[in-house]
Amino acid sequence: MIKVGIVGGTGYTGVELLRLLAPHPQVQLAAITSRKEDGMLVAEMFPSLRGHVSLAFSAPEKASLAECDVVFFATPHGVAMAQAPALLAAGVKIIDLAADFRLKDRAVFEKWYGMPHSCPEILEEAVYGLPEVNREAIKQARIIGLPGCYPTTMQLGFAPLLAQGKPLVNEAALIADCKSGVSGAGRKAEISTLLAEASDNFKAYGVKGHRHLPETVQGLQAIAGRKIGLTFVPHLVPMIRGIHSTLYATILPEARHIDFQALYESHFKNDNFVDVMPAGSHPETRSVRASNMLRIAIHRPGGGDLLVILVVEDNLVKGAAGQGVQCMNIMFGLDETTGLTHVPVMP
Amino acid sequence: MIKVGIVGGTGYTGVELLRLLAPHPQVQLAAITSRKEDGMLVAEMFPSLRGHVSLAFSAPEKASLAECDVVFFATPHGVAMAQAPALLAAGVKIIDLAADFRLKDRAVFEKWYGMPHSCPEILEEAVYGLPEVNREAIKQARIIGLPGCYPTTMQLGFAPLLAQGKPLVNEAALIADCKSGVSGAGRKAEISTLLAEASDNFKAYGVKGHRHLPETVQGLQAIAGRKIGLTFVPHLVPMIRGIHSTLYATILPEARHIDFQALYESHFKNDNFVDVMPAGSHPETRSVRASNMLRIAIHRPGGGDLLVILVVEDNLVKGAAGQGVQCMNIMFGLDETTGLTHVPVMP
Amino acid sequence: MIKVGIVGGTGYTGVELLRLLAPHPQVQLAAITSRKEDGMLVAEMFPSLRGHVSLAFSAPEKASLAECDVVFFATPHGVAMAQAPALLAAGVKIIDLAADFRLKDRAVFEKWYGMPHSCPEILEEAVYGLPEVNREAIKQARIIGLPGCYPTTMQLGFAPLLAQGKPLVNEAALIADCKSGVSGAGRKAEISTLLAEASDNFKAYGVKGHRHLPETVQGLQAIAGRKIGLTFVPHLVPMIRGIHSTLYATILPEARHIDFQALYESHFKNDNFVDVMPAGSHPETRSVRASNMLRIAIHRPGGGDLLVILVVEDNLVKGAAGQGVQCMNIMFGLDETTGLTHVPVMP
Amino acid sequence: MIKVGIVGGTGYTGVELLRLLAPHPQVQLAAITSRKEDGMLVAEMFPSLRGHVSLAFSAPEKASLAECDVVFFATPHGVAMAQAPALLAAGVKIIDLAADFRLKDRAVFEKWYGMPHSCPEILEEAVYGLPEVNREAIKQARIIGLPGCYPTTMQLGFAPLLAQGKPLVNEAALIADCKSGVSGAGRKAEISTLLAEASDNFKAYGVKGHRHLPETVQGLQAIAGRKIGLTFVPHLVPMIRGIHSTLYATILPEARHIDFQALYESHFKNDNFVDVMPAGSHPETRSVRASNMLRIAIHRPGGGDLLVILVVEDNLVKGAAGQGVQCMNIMFGLDETTGLTHVPVMP
Repeated sequence: MIKVGIVGGTGYTGVELLRLLAPHPQVQLAAITSRKEDGMLVAEMFPSLRGHVSLAFSAPEKASLAECDVVFFATPHGVAMAQAPALLAAGVKIIDLAADFRLKDRAVFEKWYGMPHSCPEILEEAVYGLPEVNREAIKQARIIGLPGCYPTTMQLGFAPLLAQGKPLVNEAALIADCKSGVSGAGRKAEISTLLAEASDNFKAYGVKGHRHLPETVQGLQAIAGRKIGLTFVPHLVPMIRGIHSTLYATILPEARHIDFQALYESHFKNDNFVDVMPAGSHPETRSVRASNMLRIAIHRPGGGDLLVILVVEDNLVKGAAGQGVQCMNIMFGLDETTGLTHVPVMP
Repeated sequence: MIKVGIVGGTGYTGVELLRLLAPHPQVQLAAITSRKEDGMLVAEMFPSLRGHVSLAFSAPEKASLAECDVVFFATPHGVAMAQAPALLAAGVKIIDLAADFRLKDRAVFEKWYGMPHSCPEILEEAVYGLPEVNREAIKQARIIGLPGCYPTTMQLGFAPLLAQGKPLVNEAALIADCKSGVSGAGRKAEISTLLAEASDNFKAYGVKGHRHLPETVQGLQAIAGRKIGLTFVPHLVPMIRGIHSTLYATILPEARHIDFQALYESHFKNDNFVDVMPAGSHPETRSVRASNMLRIAIHRPGGGDLLVILVVEDNLVKGAAGQGVQCMNIMFGLDETTGLTHVPVMP
Repeated sequence: MIKVGIVGGTGYTGVELLRLLAPHPQVQLAAITSRKEDGMLVAEMFPSLRGHVSLAFSAPEKASLAECDVVFFATPHGVAMAQAPALLAAGVKIIDLAADFRLKDRAVFEKWYGMPHSCPEILEEAVYGLPEVNREAIKQARIIGLPGCYPTTMQLGFAPLLAQGKPLVNEAALIADCKSGVSGAGRKAEISTLLAEASDNFKAYGVKGHRHLPETVQGLQAIAGRKIGLTFVPHLVPMIRGIHSTLYATILPEARHIDFQALYESHFKNDNFVDVMPAGSHPETRSVRASNMLRIAIHRPGGGDLLVILVVEDNLVKGAAGQGVQCMNIMFGLDETTGLTHVPVMP
Repeated sequence: MIKVGIVGGTGYTGVELLRLLAPHPQVQLAAITSRKEDGMLVAEMFPSLRGHVSLAFSAPEKASLAECDVVFFATPHGVAMAQAPALLAAGVKIIDLAADFRLKDRAVFEKWYGMPHSCPEILEEAVYGLPEVNREAIKQARIIGLPGCYPTTMQLGFAPLLAQGKPLVNEAALIADCKSGVSGAGRKAEISTLLAEASDNFKAYGVKGHRHLPETVQGLQAIAGRKIGLTFVPHLVPMIRGIHSTLYATILPEARHIDFQALYESHFKNDNFVDVMPAGSHPETRSVRASNMLRIAIHRPGGGDLLVILVVEDNLVKGAAGQGVQCMNIMFGLDETTGLTHVPVMP
């Protein structure tokens, strides 16, 4: 059994980790920390966990995190990097759901997150936890920076196009028009995500610049081995879970003959959690609700030169907690799908 | 033209007052106060008001409230009573949307709202702003304590039964099972009313005791002229606006022959904003959305002794801002419906 | 392995059965019938099942239902009773999610469902599939009539009160104010349950009389061994899944001293799928979303004589498909919780 | 007073016409037809209209449409063209909310709508009812083909760019990523728009081709006086009203110096119902809910060459009924805003 600790279990990614890890056949939940809720039963805060999780929250200093095999950080940005050196030194593996170990370029991190990076040598070692791109590196990793929710859809959606030897599309002018459910904003008291504000409403936000842009550009460039240019426009959807990314890429003249459907199917043929749907499909976010699956459909409207790629995921599962468990499975030599075979909840 | 001031224009009842008052043909909006937003255009905070409201928020001390004819308080409990004495002394009428002037018994107020009442003599003078019950008193009033959103539905729903010379139902055991949209909780940063918490969910709350209970009991007793007993169970509905109250009363043996449909129709025959629907109707909250109308339907399932009364209103209009404007119209000798003839928005 | 057939797999209870049965460790899905969709892959209609269910729908006459160990009917009323005699004769057990085998009194069935009952002798044999009440009978049953979604909450919510030797509450005047998500109306093309009609809206319906009333009265009387009287008022909530029933019962003078919290805890102490929450709780429907759990909380507002019982379930799981699987587990000697240990999905 | 008839008053655009026209100061509602509901009070079908509309539906042959000044068609495609010749001959003006008079090229109409056009000479005369583009022609028109809901946002969103003497953007590769509330699908019994299907969900649809594509291309080409190329991807949002269109255009090198914010403000400076918001804004659909306003914001992320234009409207008002009333006002010489000055409903 893998002894697992969770730092910061009171947010949506924290409670989602608990939903996935409590029944995981190879996991023993050892500790969940929350300074504010020290001593409170987890199931008191989240009655959905009554009968499934008997742990109480404990203050960080009381939790024996150093005795865990792996610790998940479901915390605000900056927390994981403060605790990482000591845990790694104690032989504990780390999976960070925040942004501390995503951006390889410290200057970029510091610009977008407004804080210095406190352990650059660990940052260098950290592996970006996108198994469909980095599976081999994850196997060996001691510390994982998990992708953001939007970046997972954009990278997996564009990957088959960029991973070829030479460009198939205009890589300088990629567009990602992304739509996310409100849980993506976290379990935080804010007016803008109140039901009375966000329900029966739709809007774009952060068009000027969003933290997931540099992360995605870094990832796409790593996949392509070339510079790329991306415009990313996020929108808020009045729903709880789910991301739908509509991606646009202009096919280069020399690539017009390519069977993109076949290209995508082939690219992901060994990936359990990526489903390339039949040509002409319109994936719905609810078709992956509460599961770790990501679905993709490829369109070429009017047979023209614009490729439209539709990608859906559950932002709390494949976009966060589920991807973390997938990485954990890989790091500990388990089958990648262990504890992650949920049938999506529909309707 | 009536010069109107609004204290506390940044919440839902405040912005709703602006929606109703900006196009009101007899109103001139003179001032809207908000200490925190001093100088900010109202339409910057609420883009829905662009082109309709050109005022900026101003700090209370800068606003010439004393020059208004009437001031609405759309503030937290306790604010209106602090400012009422000076405004009344300056000849300004007051309509308070909070609870400062609802409860006649100071001890009850202090128990449920946890603060002393600072101007008991004004409290004594204040008129409870439910026009269908208190129209004559409102005409003469200098200061109005507007009913809460739930109490409006419960009082108007039970009124025809209680307003008779002798009891028709078991007045000691009235039940009100009420359901409210989330805007009733106000425009406040709180986790429990986030879309990700309150959407696709339903729950009761405050079953132990809710502030609208003593207010409603006071109002029902005033209508009946007798002691009554009420159990009030509020619930949270995943929608923005609307209250649906399902009221239960047990018919006394001597009243079994009564035509309750006729009783209700007769009781409200002169009330423009109460619609007694045809027998057998199921009023929907959206049938009053964004309007000042309250609709009622009477049922007697199986022809038995339990009367079921269904009441709907828009909690922000008839349950708050609209009722305030209705009172203002009455206080200033206007037709009661002036500026309040909106067709409900459906769908 | 239990060979399972499903008749009528295209509605919400059908697809929910598939979600529960596909990963059930003791089940082999053998056939799913739909005349209209004969030959279509189930996962084509429900993409959420891609990778989990490889079966295609087949016309009833092609499906070898007679070779199954058990057949679930997720069909309109009237279908199961037409096919039951032949299947039973072939040694196949039957679990009907519709109403064909719920009402013991044929006249009552015929009045409320508007069709004659075609196999009264099987009706007589059928067991009402509410395990917390009928567990022993279910063990021996060949054919199960599963409770409706509302009746499950009402019966389990009132059961501890009625199951005592003598009355504790006024059993002639029980009230159930129930609220259901829209999936309860089924996957049928109807205007009244369109998102544009039912969203941001709340209403009561069927106050005059609802088919779940006679079923619940029958069940409550069986529990009490006495006549009872019930008023049942259903409401439609703008959410997908979930029922919240608010139950009212007037405590008799001789029962005022009883510790009802202890009574409920004791009554359900051996039931895995009923959670009596701590005193003062307000169960939320999402706390059971996508799980077979039913949660109950007991209130006595103001310490008075009215008992308020709050009950939540997922109408598609404990209110339908999950309860069916629970019965199947019992009928085949499995642990009652096999395949039903899902952690509720929250948020 | 303008005598107004409505053909087909039972859908969402029909009831919205009634909401707008009932209180319109220059309108007398003369007839509303529905063969199926002949004799039924309109307010019985739509209780929101109780007290506002006293008319009953009447069968078409009973309604004296020929005595009206103007008739609105809120009907399925094909109905208006069948009745137009007789009404025009009787001197009645026509405003069609369906597609019969939108597409100037009969072959294109017949391809996308699958029916022959029965009155091509009237089609030729018909004016496309987009006032911000065609105001002068509307003044003189006898018959109006009103734009679709999506096309209104796309045309007004791109218009300032295309209306210049020479191209400013790559007009061959325009992209419109559009999102619509569910009322856009109409008041029709369909499974895909049930609350239980469309709520808490997001998906694209019609990516292969949507009827609003040829209409928009025709409109944009008329504005530009040049060929344009457009990719249009519609999506379904779990909300009732509102369209948010996110438009993408690549700035040509020679246009990089242009102040697009100023260009847009100048272009629409005389249009009462188009609000160009301050630079950096993110318009929300609720900021126009239940009003005829359309709001636009211009972005140039990272100062690059991709222009991102955000456009919101209420699909039932500016996207349908409101635009129809706006055209009527123009046709009858009224102020364009008469009866259309609603403050948007927020929250």
